[in-house]
Amino acid sequence: MAIKYVYYFGAGKADGNGSMKNLLGGKGANLAEMAGHPDLRLPVPAGFTITTDVCTYFYANKRKYPAELKGQVDTALRKVEQAMGKKFGDPSNPLLVSVRSGARRSMPGMMETVLNIGLTSKTIPGMIAKTGGNERFVYDAYRRLITMYADVVMEKAAGIEHEEGMGIRQQLDRLLDAKKRERGVRNDTELTAEDLKDLCAAMQQKIQDVLGKKFPDTPQEQLWGGIGAVFASWNGKRAVAYRNIEGIPHDWGTAVNVQSMVFGNLGESSATGVAFTRSPATGENHFYGEYLVNAQGEDVVAGLRTPAPINAESSSEHNQDMETLQKLMPAVYKQLFDIQKRLEEHYKDMQDIEFTIENGTLYMLQCRVGKRNGPAAVRMAVEMVKEKLITKEEAVLRVTADQLDELLHPILDPAAERQQTAIAKGLPAGPGGSRGQIAFTAEEAVQAAKEGRDVILVREETNPEDVAGMRAARAILTARGGMTSHAALVARGWGKCCVVGCGGIEIDLRGRRMIVGGKSYGPESWISLNGTRGLVYEGKMNMVEGGANEFLAQFLKICDAVRRLKVRTNADTPADARRAREFGAEGIGLFRTEHMFYGENCDQPLNRLRRMILAPDRQSRIEALNELYSYVKADIKATLEAMDGLPVTIRLLDPPLHEFVPHEEQKLADIALDLGISMDAARKRAETLKETNPMMGHRGVRLGVTYPEVTEMQVRAILEAAAELIQDGKKALPEIMVPVVAESREMATQFDLIAKVHKEVCAAKGIRKIPHLAGTMIEIPRAALTAGELAETAQFFSFGTNDLTQMSFGFSRDDIGGFLPEYLEKGILPADPFQTLDQAGVAELVQIGIQRGRATRPDLKVGICGEHGGDPESVKFCHRVGMDYVSCSPFRVPIARLAAAQAVVEEAAAAAGKKKPAKKSGSSKTKGRG
Amino acid sequence: MAIKYVYYFGAGKADGNGSMKNLLGGKGANLAEMAGHPDLRLPVPAGFTITTDVCTYFYANKRKYPAELKGQVDTALRKVEQAMGKKFGDPSNPLLVSVRSGARRSMPGMMETVLNIGLTSKTIPGMIAKTGGNERFVYDAYRRLITMYADVVMEKAAGIEHEEGMGIRQQLDRLLDAKKRERGVRNDTELTAEDLKDLCAAMQQKIQDVLGKKFPDTPQEQLWGGIGAVFASWNGKRAVAYRNIEGIPHDWGTAVNVQSMVFGNLGESSATGVAFTRSPATGENHFYGEYLVNAQGEDVVAGLRTPAPINAESSSEHNQDMETLQKLMPAVYKQLFDIQKRLEEHYKDMQDIEFTIENGTLYMLQCRVGKRNGPAAVRMAVEMVKEKLITKEEAVLRVTADQLDELLHPILDPAAERQQTAIAKGLPAGPGGSRGQIAFTAEEAVQAAKEGRDVILVREETNPEDVAGMRAARAILTARGGMTSHAALVARGWGKCCVVGCGGIEIDLRGRRMIVGGKSYGPESWISLNGTRGLVYEGKMNMVEGGANEFLAQFLKICDAVRRLKVRTNADTPADARRAREFGAEGIGLFRTEHMFYGENCDQPLNRLRRMILAPDRQSRIEALNELYSYVKADIKATLEAMDGLPVTIRLLDPPLHEFVPHEEQKLADIALDLGISMDAARKRAETLKETNPMMGHRGVRLGVTYPEVTEMQVRAILEAAAELIQDGKKALPEIMVPVVAESREMATQFDLIAKVHKEVCAAKGIRKIPHLAGTMIEIPRAALTAGELAETAQFFSFGTNDLTQMSFGFSRDDIGGFLPEYLEKGILPADPFQTLDQAGVAELVQIGIQRGRATRPDLKVGICGEHGGDPESVKFCHRVGMDYVSCSPFRVPIARLAAAQAVVEEAAAAAGKKKPAKKSGSSKTKGRG
Repeated sequence: MAIKYVYYFGAGKADGNGSMKNLLGGKGANLAEMAGHPDLRLPVPAGFTITTDVCTYFYANKRKYPAELKGQVDTALRKVEQAMGKKFGDPSNPLLVSVRSGARRSMPGMMETVLNIGLTSKTIPGMIAKTGGNERFVYDAYRRLITMYADVVMEKAAGIEHEEGMGIRQQLDRLLDAKKRERGVRNDTELTAEDLKDLCAAMQQKIQDVLGKKFPDTPQEQLWGGIGAVFASWNGKRAVAYRNIEGIPHDWGTAVNVQSMVFGNLGESSATGVAFTRSPATGENHFYGEYLVNAQGEDVVAGLRTPAPINAESSSEHNQDMETLQKLMPAVYKQLFDIQKRLEEHYKDMQDIEFTIENGTLYMLQCRVGKRNGPAAVRMAVEMVKEKLITKEEAVLRVTADQLDELLHPILDPAAERQQTAIAKGLPAGPGGSRGQIAFTAEEAVQAAKEGRDVILVREETNPEDVAGMRAARAILTARGGMTSHAALVARGWGKCCVVGCGGIEIDLRGRRMIVGGKSYGPESWISLNGTRGLVYEGKMNMVEGGANEFLAQFLKICDAVRRLKVRTNADTPADARRAREFGAEGIGLFRTEHMFYGENCDQPLNRLRRMILAPDRQSRIEALNELYSYVKADIKATLEAMDGLPVTIRLLDPPLHEFVPHEEQKLADIALDLGISMDAARKRAETLKETNPMMGHRGVRLGVTYPEVTEMQVRAILEAAAELIQDGKKALPEIMVPVVAESREMATQFDLIAKVHKEVCAAKGIRKIPHLAGTMIEIPRAALTAGELAETAQFFSFGTNDLTQMSFGFSRDDIGGFLPEYLEKGILPADPFQTLDQAGVAELVQIGIQRGRATRPDLKVGICGEHGGDPESVKFCHRVGMDYVSCSPFRVPIARLAAAQAVVEEAAAAAGKKKPAKKSGSSKTKGRG
Repeated sequence: MAIKYVYYFGAGKADGNGSMKNLLGGKGANLAEMAGHPDLRLPVPAGFTITTDVCTYFYANKRKYPAELKGQVDTALRKVEQAMGKKFGDPSNPLLVSVRSGARRSMPGMMETVLNIGLTSKTIPGMIAKTGGNERFVYDAYRRLITMYADVVMEKAAGIEHEEGMGIRQQLDRLLDAKKRERGVRNDTELTAEDLKDLCAAMQQKIQDVLGKKFPDTPQEQLWGGIGAVFASWNGKRAVAYRNIEGIPHDWGTAVNVQSMVFGNLGESSATGVAFTRSPATGENHFYGEYLVNAQGEDVVAGLRTPAPINAESSSEHNQDMETLQKLMPAVYKQLFDIQKRLEEHYKDMQDIEFTIENGTLYMLQCRVGKRNGPAAVRMAVEMVKEKLITKEEAVLRVTADQLDELLHPILDPAAERQQTAIAKGLPAGPGGSRGQIAFTAEEAVQAAKEGRDVILVREETNPEDVAGMRAARAILTARGGMTSHAALVARGWGKCCVVGCGGIEIDLRGRRMIVGGKSYGPESWISLNGTRGLVYEGKMNMVEGGANEFLAQFLKICDAVRRLKVRTNADTPADARRAREFGAEGIGLFRTEHMFYGENCDQPLNRLRRMILAPDRQSRIEALNELYSYVKADIKATLEAMDGLPVTIRLLDPPLHEFVPHEEQKLADIALDLGISMDAARKRAETLKETNPMMGHRGVRLGVTYPEVTEMQVRAILEAAAELIQDGKKALPEIMVPVVAESREMATQFDLIAKVHKEVCAAKGIRKIPHLAGTMIEIPRAALTAGELAETAQFFSFGTNDLTQMSFGFSRDDIGGFLPEYLEKGILPADPFQTLDQAGVAELVQIGIQRGRATRPDLKVGICGEHGGDPESVKFCHRVGMDYVSCSPFRVPIARLAAAQAVVEEAAAAAGKKKPAKKSGSSKTKGRG
């Protein structure tokens, strides 16, 4: 049996269906589903999909096709002809087709498209006849075909290099401009049929001159040229770069969709549009879309004309005066409205659809899960659960961590905004606020990011070549384009602050300035954007943390209902503790005692700590410790109280002592005086404390072993604080954590001290027992390996994956600047291991630690307190390996709650064999896009 | 059935045998073997052994005995009485017994002994009668019993504390001294029977006065007092301290040996002696021993009188004028000679025997495997193999690494020795040379060692209280004592330089000076010792490395025949390489390219390296590299040539670049000038290179990734050097090693460069292929974990256990000074993990690395190049885990060859289930003591 390479769709039936994305690509599978699924059978222009297998074959066989392909294409083309009642290349009733790419995962704008294939000197007359003598339309279509084909097929796919600005497309565009100048008109639409006919001839001549080849004049040659160009574009520079950024495998390949052309630009009863079944910007459950009368689909996406709203709900300040589709063509709108309803019910998710109306007839050109911003994703998830469209488990997969993060993003300070008037207003394409200096090109933005400067990329409009600069910029501002323009789509996908279609700005690219209201802004100027409202301000405005959204709390409750992993926070002060509880923290996973000596208002305790450190002998150290004691205790007590009985893991003094030694001579002198030692002695002591590799030096438990009095002071502060709270009728649950442990016996010395102090405090307070746990941090490779022994006495483990990563890799985090960027760039490491837990090494140590620890003590409490506790993939890992909780910074708590819930659902799916849990970083971005 | 607690021996039969050391202790088992084994049946005074089980019971039951013990002791005593024809407590024919300790492993002098038990007011007359009216002898024996018993039983075992110098023994000794003064005599022997009788009475009175108890006057009370005192002494301070040092478990317990007294001090036909079946100092195969006429055994060991040689072969400069036993009592000597022959043949090892001649009758009191020094151990092992007494496999277990080390020990520079006359001469008790300032007490020696000063402990004679000081000192010098004195035994066991019985020196302890030839030497004075010849020199003499011994080469050949593990060396220069081959190295396991920039005569290359490091851009770096190239290549070429085709593992640049930046401003300025950059730029570049934790910073392969030109230069130097040698008809086998690898992809970048340069060099030299391997160091925990991936391209692994230990523990080796000593002291770690490979953590990573590496590449070559490669226990570990080779410093190569051979034998024994391979460090000390 021959392999099936070509899948027909159209006229209520299809060879494929929506589940065949790997073979047909997303677009092809959805076209088949829309055309053929019994629930849908939508008016899809007939066509066929050439499978991704052909792409694979193409690259494996020196860009040749399988022998069977030609015949299968011919057969499918016959079916299309039948369905459409036209014939490809027929002089009297010609079929025109488009050739488009379609990968498994959408790569918007990254591959090539050729439209109007089938227009030749032979078919043009028939086409004119079939469009009621619309000669102008036909030559306009021909002009578009020639331009696209020359660019995509004859130049790019042929691998022809050219100088900057000398590409065939630019040369052909210049002919168009020349013709407009010659005719004294501004818009293409003002050119006559005759003008266009001349232009087509001139373009063909130019192609012959520049590329040395004739523009092909047979439909078959055009068709196969288009197919080859799409396959070739899979390995185009932009596509490869995009896949690298998005983590899409290079061997997936693209499918090619060949589909009958329908025309939205046949006159006033034709139109084209893009719509969403719910608002992709807010998530509101209303049909939302934009359309252009007498236009091709490209015109909407390109943002060249400002589109009109399809209905009242879709109107904005920018297009509220324009006529809606609902008013203009009520019957077609009704049909479209019903279709979108059926599509959402069918796919159980918000759909992004493209349609064309040709002479009053509606055609569905595409449907796919619609991209949305974070607030919209959250609201849809919550409302779809309420509508019983989806389950809670499905809902948690509908919001990515990045989307949730958008809601937590900083915004411009509302107070500051109230005092200033916006200099311009555009479309709110990406929420949150941002500020930066102006970058006028993608290159400038990339360079600025390298230098650590915040910039906003300001462009007339963006295109796929700008992607790196868009990523590097803090925010994006465009003068043109709508909510579905390139800039808007890309920014939304990344959760980046973005304002598009901001007509009030004028960009002078050569002069590197932006002119707004007659005032000029250069590369040094600061501007601020409110991406949620589409506002542009002059200057560097204050920012504040993102405000919660009414749906956020509901969504996180859904997550809480699904997840099993607890989420704690890292907090070092009572204020942190209170804030973290607001974010939903269920305890503190890391309270760093030493942090009370950093920051503001800590001169007093810090000085006392320094006295303790520089003390010449044990006696003066104990005196200094006694003075320090009250500060430590007060802080711990307030934190325990704020957490109201939720567990608080308090880490004993961790950093090397030298970190606290004052650098200023005067401060050192003061302490020396205070301690009654000479300045020389103080300097000598400070010198003694210096270390070659302080990260691996005399710190953590090693300090506790050599200076047991330091441990005693801290433990006494913790236990007395707890005892006093309990005696006041309050709740307190301290978990005392010994850091930097490499060997069970060193930990045991500290546990002995804890037991001793516990006894003493109980006796002093007349209390039988103070509830507390004693455990250790697992942050040294050897601790993970000897976890079985550690668990003999440790009641909990907390994985300190920051240090564990440092030591597993031998990477000093302070010193990776010299090589890590190059490692990431060269792909030596897939991700910064300090951001996403390294699966090949560190994760194994974590697993070994848990497994051996639980083998000794089955009820061992296990958590993580490195920064990975706030990284979604790492949180999922923590769930999979059976941790009890993760602990992260307060602002990451919601992210962790979501990731923990997703982990449950993914685990169930994996268990059911339906789906493997995501292993690669970045793959979470595709969750919820079905 | 009652448990058997008491084992009889004597008169040609015994309840136990030599294999029962755990139950009967070493001494008891050997007494049983000597008395009862059909091949031996030697004249052993009858007695019995109370088992170590009783000791265990004693400590588990508040110092009570099992109920059955009394009856079993009585029964055994009856058998002894029968055998000896005497009765315990019999007024007319009394049996006297000794009570001695006897643990599984010898703990010389650490536990208590009581002699002459059974002498009471009732038995004294009978004893006098039985000794032919030798009243003086009997009261002398009684005096000894009283002194020992009062000290050991009535004071120490009773736990009575006393002030310094006020112990009962000292008080009784003072009575003896008073009596001698009163009688105007110098020696004990000059006191009359009457004097001694008075003395005994005075002593008994003193005991009553001081201890408030009567000296017991019944044999039974004396016997049980003695037994209890021996059991009590197992947990005496000295014994506990000794076990801690030697790693002897505290729960083993001691046995108690009760044995009939025989007397070497009954007159001129009585004698006592200690002998060895071969010379313990040289290993020569002749009967060697010392004896004293009319003396008790203690007199020989205590070194109070200089003993005579038993035969001509045993005579030395010190006793060559004394009459030998062979001459004095030819028949007894003949009997003794035969016995020692049979003993050595029976035990197949050199025996240390104690004998007593009572009125012309020979008694064997003890036999055990004799301690020996390194040269003797090596010679005996070699000769016993030649004699077919033992196999090669047995031979390699007969020499410990420490003993072998003695042969490799430094000695005084022979040239210097020739130019100086010794100030004193003593017995050569511990080989090698040493020099140091004088410590007059053990405390001083310990203190000096703490301060890092080299001292020689100079004592009248040493005793077990001095052990810590003996250990701390570089060498030991005593004024008294023979080759079997405490100082000699202990020093020999440790392979420490030692001179004993140096009569020419006079020690003024109070004045803290040593007087030799009228000249005074204080604590500041330096002296030098030749422990191989027994010479003492004034001043701090030059030292040189230990010379090889004719048997060493033969012994190492035996090791080579047994071992499987290859032994390579770490060498950084052609000179090192040549020396290492002399030591038997089979390749270089670590050649550190950067070391050619350290040390003398390397200003030129170092400056060029510095230029390379400080180069402002890639171009000037390449220029500096080109200049550096010739130095690197010349060094590598000479090293490859020296190794003549043996593999040479060359590590690419490892340390962080900042290590090479000059500290002096002038040098930096010179380089800046040379590079044509400003001093500011040079300083800035140097500053940029500084790191917080350089050990985990931008070094090793990370440099190779970011500065590929540095790798290229080195690889080119290596491959060109090899190519040129091969073209000259010589052999060369470089193994290029990439250091600090954490991830296979970073290693792969370097392998790509190696392949590229290989191609280029081959082309340039017109050669098809240059033999070489490409591999990596496993020194980062993650490398061990991802070894499976690394082995996909790496052809060899070399475990860099120094860094692996640093990162597994999170211990910066430069910074452990603040806590590691305390860790070792408190027993938190059993050993310095940088000396002996940590079994609980690092070893597991090594095992994981090998296992995963070999799973991918079964023929993966695996070695170790950390300092552990020269540590015997670690070498054995390397053998067990299947490494191909170890690499260590040149001087440790023989040790590694030995350890590798022992590993084979121990493995076979473990496989045969006879014996577990030694796991604890230090246990190798007991090998060959059977």
